[in-house]
Amino acid sequence: MKDKLAELQARLAEIKDLEQAAYVLYWDQNVYMPPGGAAARGRQTATLTRLAHEKFIDPDLGRLLDELQPYTESLPYESDEASLVRVARRLYERKSKVPPKFTAEFENHTATILEVWKEARPADDFAKVRPYLERTLDLSRRYASYFDYEHIADPLIDGADYGMKVSTIRPIFAELRERLVPIVQAITAQPPADNACLHQHFPEEQQLAFGVEVIKRFGYDFERGREDKSPHPFTIEFSIGDVRITTRVKENDLLEALSGTMHEAGHAMYEQGGRMDFEGTPLAGGTSMGVHESQSRLWENLVGLGRPFWHHFYPKLQAVFPDQLGSVNPDAFYRAINKVERSLIRVEADEVTYNLHVMLRFDLECQLLEGSLEVRDLPEAWRARMGADLGIVPPDDRDGVLQDIHWYSNFIGGQFQGYTLGNIMSAQFFEAALQAHPEITGEMENGEFGTLLRWLTDNIYQHGSKFTTAELLERAVGGSLSIEPYIRYLREKYGELYEL
Amino acid sequence: MKDKLAELQARLAEIKDLEQAAYVLYWDQNVYMPPGGAAARGRQTATLTRLAHEKFIDPDLGRLLDELQPYTESLPYESDEASLVRVARRLYERKSKVPPKFTAEFENHTATILEVWKEARPADDFAKVRPYLERTLDLSRRYASYFDYEHIADPLIDGADYGMKVSTIRPIFAELRERLVPIVQAITAQPPADNACLHQHFPEEQQLAFGVEVIKRFGYDFERGREDKSPHPFTIEFSIGDVRITTRVKENDLLEALSGTMHEAGHAMYEQGGRMDFEGTPLAGGTSMGVHESQSRLWENLVGLGRPFWHHFYPKLQAVFPDQLGSVNPDAFYRAINKVERSLIRVEADEVTYNLHVMLRFDLECQLLEGSLEVRDLPEAWRARMGADLGIVPPDDRDGVLQDIHWYSNFIGGQFQGYTLGNIMSAQFFEAALQAHPEITGEMENGEFGTLLRWLTDNIYQHGSKFTTAELLERAVGGSLSIEPYIRYLREKYGELYEL
Repeated sequence: MKDKLAELQARLAEIKDLEQAAYVLYWDQNVYMPPGGAAARGRQTATLTRLAHEKFIDPDLGRLLDELQPYTESLPYESDEASLVRVARRLYERKSKVPPKFTAEFENHTATILEVWKEARPADDFAKVRPYLERTLDLSRRYASYFDYEHIADPLIDGADYGMKVSTIRPIFAELRERLVPIVQAITAQPPADNACLHQHFPEEQQLAFGVEVIKRFGYDFERGREDKSPHPFTIEFSIGDVRITTRVKENDLLEALSGTMHEAGHAMYEQGGRMDFEGTPLAGGTSMGVHESQSRLWENLVGLGRPFWHHFYPKLQAVFPDQLGSVNPDAFYRAINKVERSLIRVEADEVTYNLHVMLRFDLECQLLEGSLEVRDLPEAWRARMGADLGIVPPDDRDGVLQDIHWYSNFIGGQFQGYTLGNIMSAQFFEAALQAHPEITGEMENGEFGTLLRWLTDNIYQHGSKFTTAELLERAVGGSLSIEPYIRYLREKYGELYEL
Repeated sequence: MKDKLAELQARLAEIKDLEQAAYVLYWDQNVYMPPGGAAARGRQTATLTRLAHEKFIDPDLGRLLDELQPYTESLPYESDEASLVRVARRLYERKSKVPPKFTAEFENHTATILEVWKEARPADDFAKVRPYLERTLDLSRRYASYFDYEHIADPLIDGADYGMKVSTIRPIFAELRERLVPIVQAITAQPPADNACLHQHFPEEQQLAFGVEVIKRFGYDFERGREDKSPHPFTIEFSIGDVRITTRVKENDLLEALSGTMHEAGHAMYEQGGRMDFEGTPLAGGTSMGVHESQSRLWENLVGLGRPFWHHFYPKLQAVFPDQLGSVNPDAFYRAINKVERSLIRVEADEVTYNLHVMLRFDLECQLLEGSLEVRDLPEAWRARMGADLGIVPPDDRDGVLQDIHWYSNFIGGQFQGYTLGNIMSAQFFEAALQAHPEITGEMENGEFGTLLRWLTDNIYQHGSKFTTAELLERAVGGSLSIEPYIRYLREKYGELYEL
């Protein structure tokens, strides 16, 4: 059995090598590649991805997993070996169920629709992209059909958030919406906060240096990572020893780069915190989109938009930008960065309204897949829901149904739930950490994050993908997915800010 | 046959994708990778390289080449299709003759000896590395034994400079040495040139910007490439549309970065100048080490150390460094950059003495492989030859036999001849270009290099690997390898400088 396990590990390591090599190519493409490199780079990445996929669905790998099954069943569930086989089998089964021909067809289609969307969005021309989006919906349904499911969106959700289903997510999201809408209404009934101080001129170099200083304090390890600029910020893992982030800077928006840097550092610390002996196996890396997002949002929002954090960092920020912030008092700055407003664009939304944007998309995805909503009715459904949830209706499709890249570059389904699951869990994890270590707040006020990072590492990061989202929650917070900590967090923070 | 050709192209494109993906990983490793990434990166690169090799020696590829042979024999030698099959077959045969087990063994050995050498060189401890070098020699002999050969060094030379043999190189090198030694003696009998002006403080940023300006004028295309810093300068091709260079800067040595940048740009323009429809085939990329080096040296030395070039660029350089160079007149500067001296280190040698360093190594490689020189006698042989050729004897092995990385990271044999073949050919090509277009000199005086670049592109670059070195020479200069243009070039230039 040791031989078979070693063979499994060797096969999985080879696959991981190909996948992570493709990541290096992707990173380079987004960060440093000259324009002339694009054509060949697309082909090179496709080759690596295809080879990794072929090697994963190799029937010999399936046989090996079958042969190892009885042995690992004799081991404790949590043992590394049982976990390796369990997680590898899950991936093998998911990948094997989809015919390679379908994957190729889908990739061709997404390459096409992406280009159409790139033209349709600025032109505000939903009609142009509509037939392609209808085909995306057909293909998304076809993808789901390769699996057994309760709800047709479940296989798509499962790929990003293993173990989650429409039937588990829907009631939670419905309740969250019910609790959020009145909060948004109460806040937006008051005079808006003034955040003009964030929109002065802040030179790029100082912004970047300040962000680096912050995430070094968080515990992002620059010996095992680096930060570069890219048009869209992302985190990427070449190995547990090399987890990189990117950010983008707007010189007239102080939060753009800083929030992005803290967000990506949250993702990256999750990856950096994995057990080194998981390297080269599917156990390395975060377990789900939701848990990943819980970490990016925890560091970006629960830490990075909080009073304790700024108690330490605001004087430092003022020292970097004395002309711009010297006369802005800490409370005014805190109100500015936590301004809540009804807005059209998800990625620019504050932490109170953000989830309403996400849940809107999640519900529309489900309806499209069910067949209870037609693509042609999607723009109108979008507007109606925006009006109902946010009290604001986009004047066009550009800032409505055309705004996110997701449906125009990937499946319809499974694309959005992770953002809100992440927000919900970020509060569960943060509350649990603070309960276990009340000193965390005082440490943050001193610019220290070691206790928090250790708690997160011990309870989440080190485990990589060994446990499912539900298992991690049970182990870390002693319960299941719950919106209560998140609502408590918002009520407390914004209650104080807006005297609700 | 069209189907078979398409299958061949698809297989070769997949191999090229893997190879070039490995290059991206190599580039990143040398330019931006954080220290923590090293372990996994080594494994990832090895996986890509191994897969590319396995796919190249796949017997199905061999059968395909066999099946295509009669068809391509009916085509003109120069046709793209015949050339593709011819070049692919050459690579297939070379790679197939070496057992994968040997390759793995050799790679293990070189990884080991490289680490030993890294310690032995600063410690001046040849004895420490000697047993490993003896094994390198054994393995180099074993590698040669997989091939038919006239001289045991031939298979090793063939890999870098296809078609070249000891029996063709030796007489040419012997003659070159005979002609060079008296020139060196005549020059070094005179008072040395004063190059102190090059060793002032030149801030890095300005040095880099000046180098970029120069190679843009040469015609290096930054839309299809970029320059970064690395410990050792190199050129690397991810595709014909993405050929990158690196350089290194010494703030107390004005020539270090500039020479390196011009040198690598020469390599890179050769790659960038290949026919775009060779992309993804073994026809893309330079045909041999010698021709490649002819281009790096042509741009670095024949252009970049010449009076016409500096007629245009010296005032610009003075404008960048007015404090350092404002009072150095053009002639003094020209003498400084062309200082000839007896020195110990190949990579720092001027263009007159450089080839003596190279030929010494070439001859010692041949003697070691033949068995007429033992590894234990190598340091002494080195010293003796340095005394005979350069009139200077290294005081230690650090600056003697331990100075170059080549023998401690690769085979003994085939490692050095390309440098001097390149110098020889650089003068042949340059002379032919000037004969065809005498206006090139005047253009260079105006900072224009279009006619020169076009001649090189038409006669060399566009052909990629389609023609062998000998065929290229025949086509471009109407003759075979000859040292006469090179000797003429040196005599004329240094005759004037040193009034020989």
